[in-house]
Amino acid sequence: MREINVAMIGEGFMGRTHSNAWSQVKKFFKLTAQPVMHTSCSRNAESSRTFADHWGWKNSSTDWRATVASPDIELVDVVTPNNMHAEVCLAALAAGKHVACEKPIAGTLAEAKKMVDAAKASKAKTFVWYNYRRCPAVAFAHRLVKDGALGEIRHVRAFYLQDWADDSIPLIWRFQKEGAGTGSHGDLNAHIIDMTRFVTGEEITEISGAIAETFIKQRKIVAGSTAGGIAAGVGSGDQTGPVTVDDAVLFLARFSGGAVASYEAARQATGNQNRNGFEINGSKGAIKFDFERMNELQYYDATRPRAVQGWTTIMCTHGGDHPYTENWWPDAHVLGYEHGFVNQAYDILRVLDGQEPVVPIPDFVDAYQTQRVLEAALISAVERRPVALSDVK
Amino acid sequence: MREINVAMIGEGFMGRTHSNAWSQVKKFFKLTAQPVMHTSCSRNAESSRTFADHWGWKNSSTDWRATVASPDIELVDVVTPNNMHAEVCLAALAAGKHVACEKPIAGTLAEAKKMVDAAKASKAKTFVWYNYRRCPAVAFAHRLVKDGALGEIRHVRAFYLQDWADDSIPLIWRFQKEGAGTGSHGDLNAHIIDMTRFVTGEEITEISGAIAETFIKQRKIVAGSTAGGIAAGVGSGDQTGPVTVDDAVLFLARFSGGAVASYEAARQATGNQNRNGFEINGSKGAIKFDFERMNELQYYDATRPRAVQGWTTIMCTHGGDHPYTENWWPDAHVLGYEHGFVNQAYDILRVLDGQEPVVPIPDFVDAYQTQRVLEAALISAVERRPVALSDVK
Amino acid sequence: MREINVAMIGEGFMGRTHSNAWSQVKKFFKLTAQPVMHTSCSRNAESSRTFADHWGWKNSSTDWRATVASPDIELVDVVTPNNMHAEVCLAALAAGKHVACEKPIAGTLAEAKKMVDAAKASKAKTFVWYNYRRCPAVAFAHRLVKDGALGEIRHVRAFYLQDWADDSIPLIWRFQKEGAGTGSHGDLNAHIIDMTRFVTGEEITEISGAIAETFIKQRKIVAGSTAGGIAAGVGSGDQTGPVTVDDAVLFLARFSGGAVASYEAARQATGNQNRNGFEINGSKGAIKFDFERMNELQYYDATRPRAVQGWTTIMCTHGGDHPYTENWWPDAHVLGYEHGFVNQAYDILRVLDGQEPVVPIPDFVDAYQTQRVLEAALISAVERRPVALSDVK
Amino acid sequence: MREINVAMIGEGFMGRTHSNAWSQVKKFFKLTAQPVMHTSCSRNAESSRTFADHWGWKNSSTDWRATVASPDIELVDVVTPNNMHAEVCLAALAAGKHVACEKPIAGTLAEAKKMVDAAKASKAKTFVWYNYRRCPAVAFAHRLVKDGALGEIRHVRAFYLQDWADDSIPLIWRFQKEGAGTGSHGDLNAHIIDMTRFVTGEEITEISGAIAETFIKQRKIVAGSTAGGIAAGVGSGDQTGPVTVDDAVLFLARFSGGAVASYEAARQATGNQNRNGFEINGSKGAIKFDFERMNELQYYDATRPRAVQGWTTIMCTHGGDHPYTENWWPDAHVLGYEHGFVNQAYDILRVLDGQEPVVPIPDFVDAYQTQRVLEAALISAVERRPVALSDVK
Repeated sequence: MREINVAMIGEGFMGRTHSNAWSQVKKFFKLTAQPVMHTSCSRNAESSRTFADHWGWKNSSTDWRATVASPDIELVDVVTPNNMHAEVCLAALAAGKHVACEKPIAGTLAEAKKMVDAAKASKAKTFVWYNYRRCPAVAFAHRLVKDGALGEIRHVRAFYLQDWADDSIPLIWRFQKEGAGTGSHGDLNAHIIDMTRFVTGEEITEISGAIAETFIKQRKIVAGSTAGGIAAGVGSGDQTGPVTVDDAVLFLARFSGGAVASYEAARQATGNQNRNGFEINGSKGAIKFDFERMNELQYYDATRPRAVQGWTTIMCTHGGDHPYTENWWPDAHVLGYEHGFVNQAYDILRVLDGQEPVVPIPDFVDAYQTQRVLEAALISAVERRPVALSDVK
Repeated sequence: MREINVAMIGEGFMGRTHSNAWSQVKKFFKLTAQPVMHTSCSRNAESSRTFADHWGWKNSSTDWRATVASPDIELVDVVTPNNMHAEVCLAALAAGKHVACEKPIAGTLAEAKKMVDAAKASKAKTFVWYNYRRCPAVAFAHRLVKDGALGEIRHVRAFYLQDWADDSIPLIWRFQKEGAGTGSHGDLNAHIIDMTRFVTGEEITEISGAIAETFIKQRKIVAGSTAGGIAAGVGSGDQTGPVTVDDAVLFLARFSGGAVASYEAARQATGNQNRNGFEINGSKGAIKFDFERMNELQYYDATRPRAVQGWTTIMCTHGGDHPYTENWWPDAHVLGYEHGFVNQAYDILRVLDGQEPVVPIPDFVDAYQTQRVLEAALISAVERRPVALSDVK
Repeated sequence: MREINVAMIGEGFMGRTHSNAWSQVKKFFKLTAQPVMHTSCSRNAESSRTFADHWGWKNSSTDWRATVASPDIELVDVVTPNNMHAEVCLAALAAGKHVACEKPIAGTLAEAKKMVDAAKASKAKTFVWYNYRRCPAVAFAHRLVKDGALGEIRHVRAFYLQDWADDSIPLIWRFQKEGAGTGSHGDLNAHIIDMTRFVTGEEITEISGAIAETFIKQRKIVAGSTAGGIAAGVGSGDQTGPVTVDDAVLFLARFSGGAVASYEAARQATGNQNRNGFEINGSKGAIKFDFERMNELQYYDATRPRAVQGWTTIMCTHGGDHPYTENWWPDAHVLGYEHGFVNQAYDILRVLDGQEPVVPIPDFVDAYQTQRVLEAALISAVERRPVALSDVK
Repeated sequence: MREINVAMIGEGFMGRTHSNAWSQVKKFFKLTAQPVMHTSCSRNAESSRTFADHWGWKNSSTDWRATVASPDIELVDVVTPNNMHAEVCLAALAAGKHVACEKPIAGTLAEAKKMVDAAKASKAKTFVWYNYRRCPAVAFAHRLVKDGALGEIRHVRAFYLQDWADDSIPLIWRFQKEGAGTGSHGDLNAHIIDMTRFVTGEEITEISGAIAETFIKQRKIVAGSTAGGIAAGVGSGDQTGPVTVDDAVLFLARFSGGAVASYEAARQATGNQNRNGFEINGSKGAIKFDFERMNELQYYDATRPRAVQGWTTIMCTHGGDHPYTENWWPDAHVLGYEHGFVNQAYDILRVLDGQEPVVPIPDFVDAYQTQRVLEAALISAVERRPVALSDVK
């Protein structure tokens, strides 16, 4: 069987989920191209070695430039901090490698644009890990809409609400513009913009209004904290520093097919640990999704006889009917967070072997659209005016 | 328009719900026969007068025998304690009156049998207030099953769980056999036996096993408490007396169509204030109902394409599609507890005027079947053996 | 007991709910001042007579000016179309009558301002029927927030979603600016603006952005349809006319205490028949309400030990603990749509008799704040810019 | 680090979940003893080789006797059909090996008794894979009850409802007594008996009544089907054979602490794909669990102020507060079916290394209690009488 050597650049939380994905995909999917976990790469030699051993990478490295240029490598998987995405991806593309990059594709829209140009100029394939597309319920939602089950789409409501960022959390990198770019916006809105574009099959054409808010403006400084590494310690003494990113970003938007939409990302929405989802209403039906119950899709079929219309909770675990699930466990033996990543690893391997993915994967060109929406929403919040997407390039 | 003079015998909680029903039915339903709230009757003259004035009865009385025999009265509505049902109903039937009796029809099966015989011998109509049949969701469930939506019925699970009877509650009449007959069994199981018979359209043929349990065996004696009146005060001093009825009764059963079933009534099922409902699974579909969300029926249609199968929450408030609702408010402007009684008042008036009720009302013959099941379950619990319904008459 | 003579001006859907409220309040509440349903008034003599007889008004009238000026009347209840509110209320106030007006208080902000001025100049009491405040769950939410259970409020999400207005519905008055003023905005957003002001105890200070959309721009003309009367018939022939109001209005807002907020009213949000509710997140806790399950309040108490934190579904039916419920049925014997109106009738009578209402009722001054928010949101949608509330008077 | 060589006997569905568990536990848990996937063993050499290669076992074998006796092996993991459990486990114990056996421990109670005796006579540790104990929500329920959160337990309701066995399914081994022993009873009731014993910390003392039912008595014979292998093909021609096991088993029971209980296992409970759960009500609180939402535990705390009492949905994913979850993903990044197995592998390794498991694991002695309950329930169903557990040994 064809083998595809993978190098992963970066570690951390996403390094673990990707490593797990490359390992598990071989066990649960029938592959025509086999991934080889060739090299993992991070800054510190000892940490890099330990990580590689633990997760089953054959080699470790501290030299990402050499790694992405190595003739042994076919696919470069990028899980660095956002502000390094562009540099690594551009080098990998320049070396003719396929690239799978974590979301959002870049720290700035300008960088994203360069990545798109490089991708277009290359014969290599690009992929972005918007993993929630590959929750079976979300993938099934995409298919339902594509098959016309919703008719003309009129309303989109998207939300990604968390509540971890209370005032006990110190000034870690996620609260600083240099390291994080934005706060909840790039972290959370990015996902729901991508998901709603994916499920509706439409593009956002205008940001009609927006709010960006930072509720907790000062946080305790953590001793020894440095941007780029997640510092989980508590603040030392009474010294505080300014939070320079948003806690919450809300915006209103219009879609290409005429729908009106609202989006909200928040980190202090008490009671919501990871409520990542959407509601979409069309002329023939409607759907709802909430990641905290990720195996379920709510579907309202307005074409049924009125007496039996209602919201139907579809347990999206039926092999053959719901995407990806025939590779996992029996019906209603539910899946979790990590399975979306394994499903994406499968689809990347399919594409690299010349097959269609089960549902579309965003490449750099596609992910750039999401980035433009993020940018437009920020402009709208700051300049307090509607922003046409056609003006954001 | 034809007028029907109603006399109500008894007061209390059910006196209030029935009075409200006779009053409200005139406002919300298009009637061909108009009820007249002619006389309400209870033991104490002052209380009876006050009650009648408050609820809009034209006359009050303390002489129920004279009232039920009065030529002015066409329909006698019986809301006395259970152990008086038989005496009042038999007198009313003897006087040629139509009778609407609260559930359960009698304190003992022998009394119930006499009532059935008297009803059969009379030209009068009889009705029993199993009000939950007339929640729109339950009435709609009945129709769905009748129309074949569930196919062959295989499983029935019924439950009526409350939690008010913790050890702070003193020895009121509900805990004493003389006044109450049984505890949770007659109070709660009666309802779910009736509902499941109504919805399935089948009869219980066997009690396969049963448990009756009293968890709190002694309760504080309330000063001045008398059986027949609900004493809500706290116990005085440390004196306690024995609870002589059940706190919980569970039983397994078989239905005439082959289904297996379980029933449970409980008063210390902490967390459930009024969970009165059922689940029914058939070869083609399934339904679930819980009174605490009484406007909703859960329906699983196993004949739909597998990919979109799931439990559908039907908001049973759509006028024209869900029984009774065209007489109330717009869609999803939800109904409450009292509306089932008003709906029943409507159907009683329909029947008395020669029309079909919207869905079947139990008469004495029908309610006697429920009474037989209650009796069989008690025998099964006490004698610790299966009991065939054909042996309980 | 003191009696308060009530005259109701108008009929229709709200005429029925108010008539029911004045009738039921006497039966379920212990009153110190008794309402007398003295006169109901509408245009057509026969219809007015029939309506009065049916609902128990002692007299009927077709002359609203005479009625509101009559020395027999103490309280004028206004349920006319919105564009008549001002004229009737001003006349009633001029005659020294107390006034209870349906929401929204007026068809235009200018009219509302006149009503406020008249109310301030009068010794009479004014009330506005924002009935949802008196769902026990909403009233309890108000108390929880007032008692500090949520801490500092950061997020408000409010929505009132319906789906009745598909393209089969002809050009009834609700789709025409002359009769209706606005579409979903005044009809639905009015309620959720009032509810969130009530529950948070804060004021909206800015509309940060807004969208108003009409999805179905032409509807069939109904033969014989006239503005002011709801024509439910189907369109005749192929003739269509323009819809001149919104189908949906979304807006973002800021609250006086620092919270950010989103609002949405919609009539084609398929799958939602009457989803009228809110989510509010604070630093110590959060609440959620959805009218389709009106007996329930969701509460997240972030001060509990983390291991047992979660959304708690409070069945708001416990007499003594949840407002109004001690006057109705036993615990979890649920209430419906109409009970909010009866509860409001009770509070109006309390206020007229010199007592505090159970929870605050909006008077004209209070309801005018809601009107200003409605106006500001429309300006924001039309002029495509943020609007400070201080600029809308 | 200490290494523990594992041999797995058997393949199939459970072979896959166990292989995955032994592989994943090394990646997600901090271990003091490392499992080595030494040998997997099944009948057919080629299949055994393929399986071992796919799942990462170092060696494959077709000789289970040699494998369990090999000095290289420290722990034998048994995933054979139930009727082979005893033979393999007894051989392993005789060779001094630790044994981890799939549930139920044996095909008959007599075999189970032999296994218990052998385990007692051995110094080796035994384990049974009742995996649902290690869903974090179930493990947390165990802790809550142990800490007294429920007070005195009065009600247990347990159910394991599936719906896969409609009449399209042919006569596979699961429907035949020789291969399967029982139908839904051993497959499903075994799990909920174990879970409720685990969570309550009490034992069942009596089966008070029971029903066993086979709804579909004849099924199509599958060409080439052999007992022991799951034949998924459709029946050939019209030939049918008798189903010799139950489709559903319901029973009532009493617990040692005084609680009354009901259990139900079903395979044609339409609408329920894998509803495996329980409700437990005590004097101070109550809990509910449903595996289809396995990350959630419902908890009702009756010691809270009445006004805020309600069912709380605890998302059992908070590291540090909910068992096992600190080893997985961030809060509300939910877990799935397979994680219970990985968690159990972790606890087995802890025990083998001399530590306490996170929550108790059933050994043979413990699992034998579950087996006795299964047996008692069958006797009760067949002999139609209550059965005391003390009479079943």
